[in-house]
Amino acid sequence: MPKPVTPLLAVDAVILLNNKQDLILIRRKNPPFKGDLALPGGFVDVGETVEDACIREAKEETNINIKIIKLIGVFSDPKRDPRGHNISIAFLCGPLTEKEKPKALNDATALEIFPLSKISSLKLAFDHLDIIKSSGILNKLE
Amino acid sequence: MPKPVTPLLAVDAVILLNNKQDLILIRRKNPPFKGDLALPGGFVDVGETVEDACIREAKEETNINIKIIKLIGVFSDPKRDPRGHNISIAFLCGPLTEKEKPKALNDATALEIFPLSKISSLKLAFDHLDIIKSSGILNKLE
Repeated sequence: MPKPVTPLLAVDAVILLNNKQDLILIRRKNPPFKGDLALPGGFVDVGETVEDACIREAKEETNINIKIIKLIGVFSDPKRDPRGHNISIAFLCGPLTEKEKPKALNDATALEIFPLSKISSLKLAFDHLDIIKSSGILNKLE
Repeated sequence: MPKPVTPLLAVDAVILLNNKQDLILIRRKNPPFKGDLALPGGFVDVGETVEDACIREAKEETNINIKIIKLIGVFSDPKRDPRGHNISIAFLCGPLTEKEKPKALNDATALEIFPLSKISSLKLAFDHLDIIKSSGILNKLE
């Protein structure tokens, strides 16, 4: 039996900071959506769990050690990424300790931290605003 | 940038039947775990959502048209499948209508329908018993 070909698998992290009042976003350094705001995240490596991939990508892009609070969902619309069919597993996360210091690294040109009340009015890459809305963190603001 | 290599992506369906009293399992026709009981499921095709893959695989293996009730979780332990790193997105499902008639098709040699009270004592392929337990459907039996 030939090896199956399946969509590529990525993770995205909705990371709450500052007593769950703020959200950390990155400015994308690379296409697609170069220069736009996006959730920290990236592709899952063969041999790591999706949770470990989320923790690794958050560290690589924001310098923060995170803990996972819950699975938000699986976002698999074939049109969600113009590069091809890339599926995202999204997690709601928080800092592992209160001492974590965000710093832009690697695939991010800059980090930006927004209060939750500003998120709905931002232009985000991919379906990242839908992912954030699916997490429920904006519900109490409405 | 080279195309990333990520784990393969599959779906598994926990399908409740008969007023949510019973669960439908298949006997695997192919290795690994040939001859063992397993959840209906299979690899996600490029271009389809994970929900559509779940509905398609359930139809191909059991002849049932299903509806998805909820996402159970993402199962990504690199050792869960002896063939390689295959990640499963698992859904809790029910029949689309009361008229659906289960019939073994395609990758299944036989279908078997078990009352929920018998599930914990079965030997299932992969981590499928863990998936079923994660769905919560066995909780009220304990």
